[in-house]
Amino acid sequence: MNIPEKVINRLTLYHYILEDCNNNEENISSTKIAELLNIDNSQVRKDIKYLNNTGKCRVGYNVQKLKSAIEKELGFKKERDAFIIGAGNLGSALAKFDSFKNYGLQVLAMFDNDPKKVGLSINNKEVFHISKLPDLIKRLNVNIAILTVPREYAKETANFLVKSGIKYIWNFTPCILDVPKNVKVWNENLIGSFLQFINKDEM
Amino acid sequence: MNIPEKVINRLTLYHYILEDCNNNEENISSTKIAELLNIDNSQVRKDIKYLNNTGKCRVGYNVQKLKSAIEKELGFKKERDAFIIGAGNLGSALAKFDSFKNYGLQVLAMFDNDPKKVGLSINNKEVFHISKLPDLIKRLNVNIAILTVPREYAKETANFLVKSGIKYIWNFTPCILDVPKNVKVWNENLIGSFLQFINKDEM
Repeated sequence: MNIPEKVINRLTLYHYILEDCNNNEENISSTKIAELLNIDNSQVRKDIKYLNNTGKCRVGYNVQKLKSAIEKELGFKKERDAFIIGAGNLGSALAKFDSFKNYGLQVLAMFDNDPKKVGLSINNKEVFHISKLPDLIKRLNVNIAILTVPREYAKETANFLVKSGIKYIWNFTPCILDVPKNVKVWNENLIGSFLQFINKDEM
Repeated sequence: MNIPEKVINRLTLYHYILEDCNNNEENISSTKIAELLNIDNSQVRKDIKYLNNTGKCRVGYNVQKLKSAIEKELGFKKERDAFIIGAGNLGSALAKFDSFKNYGLQVLAMFDNDPKKVGLSINNKEVFHISKLPDLIKRLNVNIAILTVPREYAKETANFLVKSGIKYIWNFTPCILDVPKNVKVWNENLIGSFLQFINKDEM
């Protein structure tokens, strides 16, 4: 089913809440979810209608069933392998972010051009020299790259990724990449995110 | 003016593109912007209509005027001070992210409870012990916290932030915070972001 982006985002937040539920909480109400996220109850119910087998009952939703329904619909179970490009602080933070694995994103290795970083192991992910990338893309059949290099290297690195066979770039740099149409870029726009926050609340 | 969140996000991306323009590029067309972001030309023109004094001309938009119009509308020039809570990899990456300053977000200091981190200076931002937070919030009149602690400490840290006087929490942890209504939380939902990406492209 084609679920709007905003709904996907909120369903993931509902999943965080369900993950936090203790084993003795069998059910959860849409009101409770709505309160925690400070959104409308009707919004929560509308979003959940995109799912099948949500465990809806008189007192809300069955926690386990709703969790499974979100996982199934958003494809958490389908494993996707990725490389992190750039082993600086951001790359390392993402390499250590174990939650990714629970949501189907498996980081296999990291790449950098800094000899001091090459050979390190960050959360069991080895840092390879960037020159090894084309070969490892082929051997491990990886087509997702998480780009965390400094802004000034973003474009040339993206070009190298494309030449090496990467098809999806999750771009954490504040730089717009100019790539061929068959390569998809998702801009993780932290500044845009912050500005949405402050403009929303008229801070 | 009340600009939809999605539009704010895209306007920031247009701003990145304009920042990248050389001094000798006087104008830019909506087609060029649309191509770089792989979106519709009509979408770009519609978004820009939210702005005043966009420098629209026969061949597109004047780069400098459009840039200024975005900055004015989204309030880049209004400085907002913030603290980063958690001096791990992610906190350090954000502390080093100098672009924030260009968009009005000024990180004044960092906080952690790890004695090995307290006293460090990361990109000229000193790391203080978390116990110093309430005092520094008052003295520096800061009400924004960027939360980057590990998931298991997210809730207790958020409670401490609220008690200390923080009013806005930019939450980078994969954990939903339960805070009073007068405190605003913006969940930087990286997993949701990734799932939007992959669901969009049916990877």
